This record gives sequence, structure tokens and C-alpha cells, in this order.
Amino acid sequence: MKKSYLFTPGPTPIPPEALLAMAQPIDYHRSEDAVALIKDVLEKLKHVFQTENNVLFLTSSGTGAMDGAVANLLCQGDKVLVVRSGKFGERWAEICEAYGVEIIPIDVKWGDSVAPEIVETQLTENPDVKAVFATLCETSTGALHDIKALARLTQSSPTLLVVDAVSALGADDLQMDNWGVDVVVSCSQKGLMTPPGLAFAALNERAWEATERSNLSKYYFDFRKAHQRGLEGSVPYTPAITLLTALQCALNHICTEGIRNTISRHNCIAIATRNAVKAIGLPLFASSPANTLTSIRLPEEIDGKAFVKMMREKHGITYAGGQGELSGKIVRIAHLGWMNESDVIVAISAFERGLAEVGYDISLGAGVAAAQEVFAKFSNQE
Amino acid sequence: MKKSYLFTPGPTPIPPEALLAMAQPIDYHRSEDAVALIKDVLEKLKHVFQTENNVLFLTSSGTGAMDGAVANLLCQGDKVLVVRSGKFGERWAEICEAYGVEIIPIDVKWGDSVAPEIVETQLTENPDVKAVFATLCETSTGALHDIKALARLTQSSPTLLVVDAVSALGADDLQMDNWGVDVVVSCSQKGLMTPPGLAFAALNERAWEATERSNLSKYYFDFRKAHQRGLEGSVPYTPAITLLTALQCALNHICTEGIRNTISRHNCIAIATRNAVKAIGLPLFASSPANTLTSIRLPEEIDGKAFVKMMREKHGITYAGGQGELSGKIVRIAHLGWMNESDVIVAISAFERGLAEVGYDISLGAGVAAAQEVFAKFSNQE
Repeated sequence: MKKSYLFTPGPTPIPPEALLAMAQPIDYHRSEDAVALIKDVLEKLKHVFQTENNVLFLTSSGTGAMDGAVANLLCQGDKVLVVRSGKFGERWAEICEAYGVEIIPIDVKWGDSVAPEIVETQLTENPDVKAVFATLCETSTGALHDIKALARLTQSSPTLLVVDAVSALGADDLQMDNWGVDVVVSCSQKGLMTPPGLAFAALNERAWEATERSNLSKYYFDFRKAHQRGLEGSVPYTPAITLLTALQCALNHICTEGIRNTISRHNCIAIATRNAVKAIGLPLFASSPANTLTSIRLPEEIDGKAFVKMMREKHGITYAGGQGELSGKIVRIAHLGWMNESDVIVAISAFERGLAEVGYDISLGAGVAAAQEVFAKFSNQE
Repeated sequence: MKKSYLFTPGPTPIPPEALLAMAQPIDYHRSEDAVALIKDVLEKLKHVFQTENNVLFLTSSGTGAMDGAVANLLCQGDKVLVVRSGKFGERWAEICEAYGVEIIPIDVKWGDSVAPEIVETQLTENPDVKAVFATLCETSTGALHDIKALARLTQSSPTLLVVDAVSALGADDLQMDNWGVDVVVSCSQKGLMTPPGLAFAALNERAWEATERSNLSKYYFDFRKAHQRGLEGSVPYTPAITLLTALQCALNHICTEGIRNTISRHNCIAIATRNAVKAIGLPLFASSPANTLTSIRLPEEIDGKAFVKMMREKHGITYAGGQGELSGKIVRIAHLGWMNESDVIVAISAFERGLAEVGYDISLGAGVAAAQEVFAKFSNQE
């Protein structure tokens, strides 16, 4: 009787009532019921984005919202700063280049987070930069970036701060309004506990002003159209209504828990996972690890690809391996969305068992105990 | 005990096993199981597209594939012919304009289908036209276009024929290879009986050659990337995997029935619906109606918007009203996808009841009887 456990940084497990909502007969997206659904979802997303700005949604994966952010905010030949510290920072750069936007890359060693001073220097040297593209959690490495510090730099200048919160929204803190972030993009299948297929974007007033100047080609990803229709509970094109019904269930969870508590829960289980990994004796890959996922550098004698494959096939445990240059070298254990202490215990104990099976010298239970200590500590604080 | 019946031209009803597939715990899209799923789905789509070309898929609604078709096939300043006979023909034109492509519109009265001779004349007068954009079934009017005749015109010239089969694929015949259509785009929530959120495109060899020359900006909708990854059972970006599992169930239905039989079934229930409407005494709106849906011109004294609203609220029957200039003037009854004779009987008998309720002078049962006659005739032919 094999049970399956999913610890990938998207898709993440879906709450049972959201799964069951998708099994209901489908409805027409232009009905009054659909209008109410869309309005409710967009209102609740504001809570998750910690913003008073309206949130718009698109039927696409998160990359669609990234594509749209570039296409809607910029003009041909604009110059932008792009923080590249992994696969998703690179994606910002690729999208900009695809649209003829000139990038000034800020390259950071994979696993590290950008030092805000470097961004500051670049902004001083390039005052004509229209936007800074950054990543809240670089999913490929597990590194958290200090968006609050970056917003402090851009807030008082005309430069926009555009943040990829695709994986981290709802797991790592991102106070769009309080910090002064101009644009946040995200998607459904990570902290929002919904299947992939929906993407989101929130823009503040000065970002909306930039969309009026933008001359890049776009149609499907036209933010202004999506935004305007969204306000009426409508859409320019047929939306993934099945996923919207699931999202509504998932958002009800977050709104009931409260986003601040949701982030605290993620913080607790993330610290537990990190301490467990340290107790097991392996190094964390990210220097500033996110709440979203924990990346673990494997000993050289362990083939990460084979390890991940074995864990799935033999134990029903799905971790993510490394991407790009990290392929085979790291394991990524996500702990976001529909996750609690018990899930983390399963993830860690299976990790211990797996390591022992591939010959790593481990004292079984050490990681689990370290996690339990963290849970006890957090529980006493409540 | 109100039951709900959906007769909109997308979304269409989902087969029960597809609904249940979506209620299963979600899986990682980079697992070997997902690779097998993607490969299976893409192979089965070839049967539905009646082509030996590979089909690519995108996570978006059908408009995303239309956007991609323009962005991937053309260059800035290219000249194209666009058949505009309703809202979706207009969409082709809007997308082309958004990308800086020059359009020569061929405007056709809403409800009519384009005369191939007019396209022929335009092609002769504008030999530098790079593509003709057409629509198999113009969903806003219910009109079917003679794609076979258009393909005969483009096949021997360097001009590409790009067909929006968003609503009609699997309901109205479209023999991509036999007829020589260069590009076909479609989506999940119509004939393919799957929730909205997936779009598809099939390109033949000369269309792929055009993608190599194209210089329009694109990233998320890059067809070459989607195609290349699809061949490996992979994706450039996280796909709507939940919808892929539903699609697999739906495609199994079509492949078991066989696409030729699927189209015959649609033809039978479409004729039944049309004859029923005539027996009721109302005119069909489209001069060449599609198998996909039947558009009915309402008597002037009936407010179409109120009628559609009343049918949904009082009877649980969801038809679609008119769009754009047809708002309030027509009712559209879709009969595609997971539909059989019994569904059409429900659609027609409810339509009769509703018309009687709003004071239309009707002999109840006349439409139903006309439909039954068609079913009997088709049944005898088998």
C-alpha cells in the first residue's frame, strides 16, 4: 500500500475540499455565479498579497505573469536591472531580452542572495534604469532575497521594483504596500495550494502609469484589460474556472488562518526542516534560506538524480532535484502551502531513511528530533 | 431539486471520469508519470486534429494559442488577410494589430460565412500576403466556414492558412493534412470536454519554417520551445497538470469513438437541433450553421438577455446569449463535446417551455418531435 507524498516547490498538495470542488460539474464563466466567484477570489488575493491594490489574474503559469510584467511595464530599448541568482532570475533576463529590453545583469552566485548595496551602486551608476527585476525566493536554489531592502532603494526613485513571488507568496513575507513594492507576480500552484494554471499580478499606482506608456506588443497578457474586467468579476478570455473554484477553497484557508499566521507557520516548519538537515550533518545550499523550500547540498558520493528517483519509486516521496548547473547536486524539499508539522516529519524521516539506504553515515532520528525541538519551541511561544 | 444543464459553447460538460481524475492528489509535472501523460495526450491530439504533425500545448485559454500563432509566424510589417465575420474573426485582427502586422480585413456580415471567391480575389490582388487568418466555426454567430475551399487557395501559394478551430475542433470536420491547412489552434473546453486552461496548436512543415523567420516578440507563447519540449513529454513552464489528466480521459473517449464518428455524432445532434428550431418556427441565425452550436434569431418582442437569465435561474438551463452587436438578439445552444441525443432533447424541450413562458405562440413538442425524426433517420442509416 504505497502512499504518495509531494514535497516539490510547485505543484504543492491541494486541500481535499479544493480537489472535490474541481470534481463538481463545470459552470459557465459568464454566469452571475462566476462573477461572484471571480470577485471573491480577487478580493481574497489582496489579503495574501498584503495590498490594497487590486490583483489581476491570468490563465497561464507563473511565467505568463512574468512575461506580462515585462510586456506591460516597459518600452523597447528601456534599460533595466535584473538580479540573476538562479534559474528564475535568469528567466527575467530572458523575457526582457525577448522583448528588446536592455538588461544590466547583477549576477549572484547560485545559492546566495543579492546584497542590496550592489543594487544601490548599480542604480546610482545607471539612473536611467526603468525597473529592477528581482525574485523573492529563487526556487532553483532556495535563497530568499531581501525585497524590503530593495524596495527602500527604489521607492524614492522613479525606478519600479518588480518582484517574482511565484514560489514564495504566502510562505515568505512580502508586504507589498508597507514595503513599497511596485509589482508582484505569482501563481496558483505554490503557497496558494491550487493546481497550476492561474497566474496573478498586483500593480501599484505608479506601475499602472508605466503601463500607459508601454509600447511593447501584447495581447493575451494585456494587464489593463485583465484588470478592468476583473473589477467587474469578468475576464477578457475564458478563464480556468475549475481552478478558480479550487483557489476559492484554498484562499478561504489562508483568510481564516490570516496571512501573518500563514507565514509564521511556514517559518516554523522551514526552521524545523533546516535544523533537521543540519542535525543530519548536511549543509544547506542557500546562505539565506527561504521558508518556501530547503535546498540541501548532497555529499559528492551521492548521485542526486538517482536519489530523487529512488525516493519516489521506492518510498512514494517526491522531492525536487537540482535544476541547471545544480542537477544531481542538491535536493530540494518544499514545505509550503497545505503543509503542517506532520508533513515535515514525514519529509525528514524519509530523507533520513533514504540517505541511510544510499550508504550515508547517519544516526537515524537525529533530524526528526531536531525538528520536534523547533515545533515544541514555537508551540510554547504561542 | 434543481438540476443544472450546460449548453454553452465552452465550457462544455466534462465526462464524470475526467471530473474524478481532477479530484485525485496532484502530481509533479517533471515525474516520469507526467512525461508519459504528456506524451500520451499529445499523441492522441494528433488523431483529433487529423494530422501527422505534432501538436503542441500551452497553459492558457484558446486566445493564448491565437496570440502565439501571430507572434510565432509573422514579422513586423507583414501583410495578412483576416476574415472577420464575428467576434472571433475580429480577435484575429486585434491580435495582428497588437503585434504591428498589417491586416487586410475581409468583412462578412455576422451570421454569414466567407465566400471563398472573395478570398481568392484578395489573394490575387495582394500576392505579398503572408497568411490568411480564418475561423472554422465563428462561435459568436454559429457560422461554419469552408476551410477546405480556403486551403485549396493557399496550398499552392506561399501564403499560410491559419485556422481558429477553438470551438469547433472535434465537432465540425477539419482535416488538417488532407485539406492542407497550415496551422490549427484550439483549446480544451469545447469539443475536447475538458475544463478551460489548455490551448493547442498544430503546425505543418512550412509553418514551422515561418517560425524560423519570425521576428515578433514572444516568450511564454514561444511555439518552438513548447513543441521541442513536448516531444520529450516535457514543458518549458509548469503546465496545468490537473487539466492534462482530465484531457487524457476525454481524449480516450474520442479515440475510442474515432474522430470520424465523433464528428458524425455532432452532425446528427446539430441537424436535430436545427430542425427542431425550424419546427418551433424560429429562424436560424447562421446561413451555414456549424455542428458546434445553433444560433437562433429571437422574435423582436423577446428580450434575449432576460430569456437566457430566466432559463438559468428558473430552469437550471444555461444557454449562451448573443455577444457584441448580437447581445439580446440571439440565443446560442451549444451541442458539442460530452453530448448525445438525450441532451439535445433536454435543450430543445426546455427551449420550447421557456418560449411558451415568455408568451411566444408555440405548439409544445413540435421541436422535440422534429429532433426525434432526425435521430430515427440517422439510426436507420447506421
